[in-house]
Amino acid sequence: MTDHHEWNVLMRTCPSRTSLAEIANKWTALIVVVLGPGPLRFSEVRERVDGISPKVLAETLRRLQRDGIVTRQAFAEMPPRVEYELTELGRTLREPLDALRTWAESNIDKVLAARDAYDEGVAPN
Amino acid sequence: MTDHHEWNVLMRTCPSRTSLAEIANKWTALIVVVLGPGPLRFSEVRERVDGISPKVLAETLRRLQRDGIVTRQAFAEMPPRVEYELTELGRTLREPLDALRTWAESNIDKVLAARDAYDEGVAPN
Repeated sequence: MTDHHEWNVLMRTCPSRTSLAEIANKWTALIVVVLGPGPLRFSEVRERVDGISPKVLAETLRRLQRDGIVTRQAFAEMPPRVEYELTELGRTLREPLDALRTWAESNIDKVLAARDAYDEGVAPN
Repeated sequence: MTDHHEWNVLMRTCPSRTSLAEIANKWTALIVVVLGPGPLRFSEVRERVDGISPKVLAETLRRLQRDGIVTRQAFAEMPPRVEYELTELGRTLREPLDALRTWAESNIDKVLAARDAYDEGVAPN
């Protein structure tokens, strides 16, 4: 825990492994992508990340809040309004996670072709 | 499935979502990181990715093989030798996944501080 500690995600006991697990996660990636342009309400995140359950969204937002990646701000209005926003730290995740999104969308044709070949037994296993 | 299909990871039914789930995964990230420099045997991957179970490693390698990210080559030797290697497609994942590794190791101090603050109730929830 000193400043000179050498963190290493390859070590099971290194705290950075828990952080990698949090960010190398499809829900984290999708939430960071949709929060990129600006703050959103819970229901707005849910609409944009098609198929995420309210439970998983709530849990993921709570973990991201705990890790300092997202802030949750409650406004004293009627009806109450709550917004989620990337922190300064969270915004540094936009680039690598947007890159994964782009990779997935750009290469899915190759991935689907590879799956077909694999399932047809072309790749011996 | 035409060439002009617009893939979108935000849609639950888009095949690119399954690809994102595969790559935005801590085990995928760690395996791509250790296979970066060159091919390795199963036991060598297992040694480098501290804490991965043989079952999870085997399953993850199989999925990565199926998706065209990793190749598995068996050499006709005694004892038999099997090596895993990133494909050309798999190598394009090195940069974004190395970026996540670097992010986790570089920012874990901030993440740990955020967790402490959150757990002490500084962040109202």
